[in-house]
Amino acid sequence: MTTASTPQTTPTALPPDDAKDQVRQLMQGLQDEICQALEQLDGVGKFRQDAWERSEGGGGRSRVMRDGNVFEQGGVGFSEVWGTHLPPSILAQRPEAEGHRWFATGTSMVLHPRNPYIPTVHLNYRYFEAGPVWWFGGGIDLTPYYPFAEDVRHFHQVMKQAADAHNPEYYPVFKRWCDEYFYLKHRCETRGVGGIFFDYQDGQGELYRGNDPEGAAATYNKQIGKSAPRSWEDLFSFARDCGKAFLPAYVPIVEKRRGMEYSERERNFQLYRRGRYVEFNLVYDRGTIFGLQTNGRTESILMSLPPLVRWEYGYQPEPNTPEAELYETYLKPQDWANWTPEQKH
Amino acid sequence: MTTASTPQTTPTALPPDDAKDQVRQLMQGLQDEICQALEQLDGVGKFRQDAWERSEGGGGRSRVMRDGNVFEQGGVGFSEVWGTHLPPSILAQRPEAEGHRWFATGTSMVLHPRNPYIPTVHLNYRYFEAGPVWWFGGGIDLTPYYPFAEDVRHFHQVMKQAADAHNPEYYPVFKRWCDEYFYLKHRCETRGVGGIFFDYQDGQGELYRGNDPEGAAATYNKQIGKSAPRSWEDLFSFARDCGKAFLPAYVPIVEKRRGMEYSERERNFQLYRRGRYVEFNLVYDRGTIFGLQTNGRTESILMSLPPLVRWEYGYQPEPNTPEAELYETYLKPQDWANWTPEQKH
Repeated sequence: MTTASTPQTTPTALPPDDAKDQVRQLMQGLQDEICQALEQLDGVGKFRQDAWERSEGGGGRSRVMRDGNVFEQGGVGFSEVWGTHLPPSILAQRPEAEGHRWFATGTSMVLHPRNPYIPTVHLNYRYFEAGPVWWFGGGIDLTPYYPFAEDVRHFHQVMKQAADAHNPEYYPVFKRWCDEYFYLKHRCETRGVGGIFFDYQDGQGELYRGNDPEGAAATYNKQIGKSAPRSWEDLFSFARDCGKAFLPAYVPIVEKRRGMEYSERERNFQLYRRGRYVEFNLVYDRGTIFGLQTNGRTESILMSLPPLVRWEYGYQPEPNTPEAELYETYLKPQDWANWTPEQKH
Repeated sequence: MTTASTPQTTPTALPPDDAKDQVRQLMQGLQDEICQALEQLDGVGKFRQDAWERSEGGGGRSRVMRDGNVFEQGGVGFSEVWGTHLPPSILAQRPEAEGHRWFATGTSMVLHPRNPYIPTVHLNYRYFEAGPVWWFGGGIDLTPYYPFAEDVRHFHQVMKQAADAHNPEYYPVFKRWCDEYFYLKHRCETRGVGGIFFDYQDGQGELYRGNDPEGAAATYNKQIGKSAPRSWEDLFSFARDCGKAFLPAYVPIVEKRRGMEYSERERNFQLYRRGRYVEFNLVYDRGTIFGLQTNGRTESILMSLPPLVRWEYGYQPEPNTPEAELYETYLKPQDWANWTPEQKH
């Protein structure tokens, strides 16, 4: 009698037969629900939809609001695409997908408010299948121009609550991963105050699957070790609940800041900081690079870019200003969910 | 008696002992000469200089003009840097440099005029040494916002003349290479009307050393075959003369267009088209990527970005407008040096 060795990893759970349909409906539902709520919030701006097809397979619907009352520009996209070869950047993380046809669906959005006291926000959830593998990815993150600790704490608390309901380790790992992912190395700055970010989640092994083995997320993940296996349904409902947390996380901030008066100074600073959004999306962003590498629809990929942007050589904030506080405290990873007013910088 | 086989390539000529000094003086001289002429041309704007050092070795001097009469922003940089490991993107083209210390010096500039009828222009010349290898690279290219065939023909004729004086094949190869290099694949557009571009020139073998073996430059180069060997001094004087061609190529265009009146429409189009400059520099540009990969000085690397930029989802020019003419004729490779008015689009 031979003794079979115990497999090192549990085999990945199979997705249900209607997995693609379920995720498509989720992503389209999120797009619909969020667009409707944003139109109501804005009061003036309406989303215009472009439906498009991708010659190599699939298509999507891009919705853009311009010149709203609150939103100078907002783009909310849904897409469902497929093809024969995943780009090398993804195969490096998922070698099992090599040689298999792939399928990807997701929703993503970036909102650029006009009032500099309202933060820019980004959401993206996506689902991939490729031969024997499948995974969920995505997240939500906030980019304020001016420092309001209570707004940031609120945002993080809502996201933490949504994540905690599924697994108490999700928020601690995915919050650190978010800080790490939305980091502009050439500026030594986070893009904003983060939120949560995850990728390659197939319910197996470690929660963290990022690129920095020395970073805070990997270090924390080492302490907690592998997570108990989670089913496709577990991850689906986690992605769904994170998506549904978007409106309660963001809308109250808009409501609180939309009436605040601002001057040319705040507007100029906002336009300048928007440059960092452009730098991040064009130099580092996984979704942008994936889209451009797979002959995606350029206008839809780049609808995340701000409508008006400034660059200024050698800009530095004056000491003891709100702009300086943003740099000193908000463009670094912080424990926002537990931030207290006394920690005020 | 054994017969030695003929070597396939002539060994690369050695640079003179004072090669680095000569190139440094050339690059600094170009920076000085051009800055002085641009200040005179502008009449109001002055360059402010920042000298900087790079912790891993070397430094530079960055000069920026803001809010000039002609130039909304202009950045003219000189740098001289060194280190122990060239980034992978360069080693792929120059494997002989692996494991050797490297030295690089160069000058680069981007000028963003305020008047939309004046084109943006870019110049960069650079010189590398790394162990057994050395090479020159660089070029000059023009990015008009509005179509003036005579301006573009003039620009190309001056560059062609400078190149022809050294080698009649330089312009045909380097002009095609320029069209190929300054190409936004995700937009299916050239960045502008090109000029000349070359890289990895060590005086040996083929003139074209780019990445597209199927492109027009490679195809043309195949017809002409290898070029006769050229010495270090030949290439030095070629780079020098191309650098000196900048003022006669560009200044007359500024003089001709600076008085033209424009309205919000042209300004808006200019700001929109500047977005392509940002997209190119952050997604494709070799100098930008090299700088960011080698911990360069971010402010100096990104001083090429325009001071104010617009993105607009789904923009398309109206038919039969100057904006449409730009897209139809000027954002595609054309034989500009021989362009005749009858070819008018």
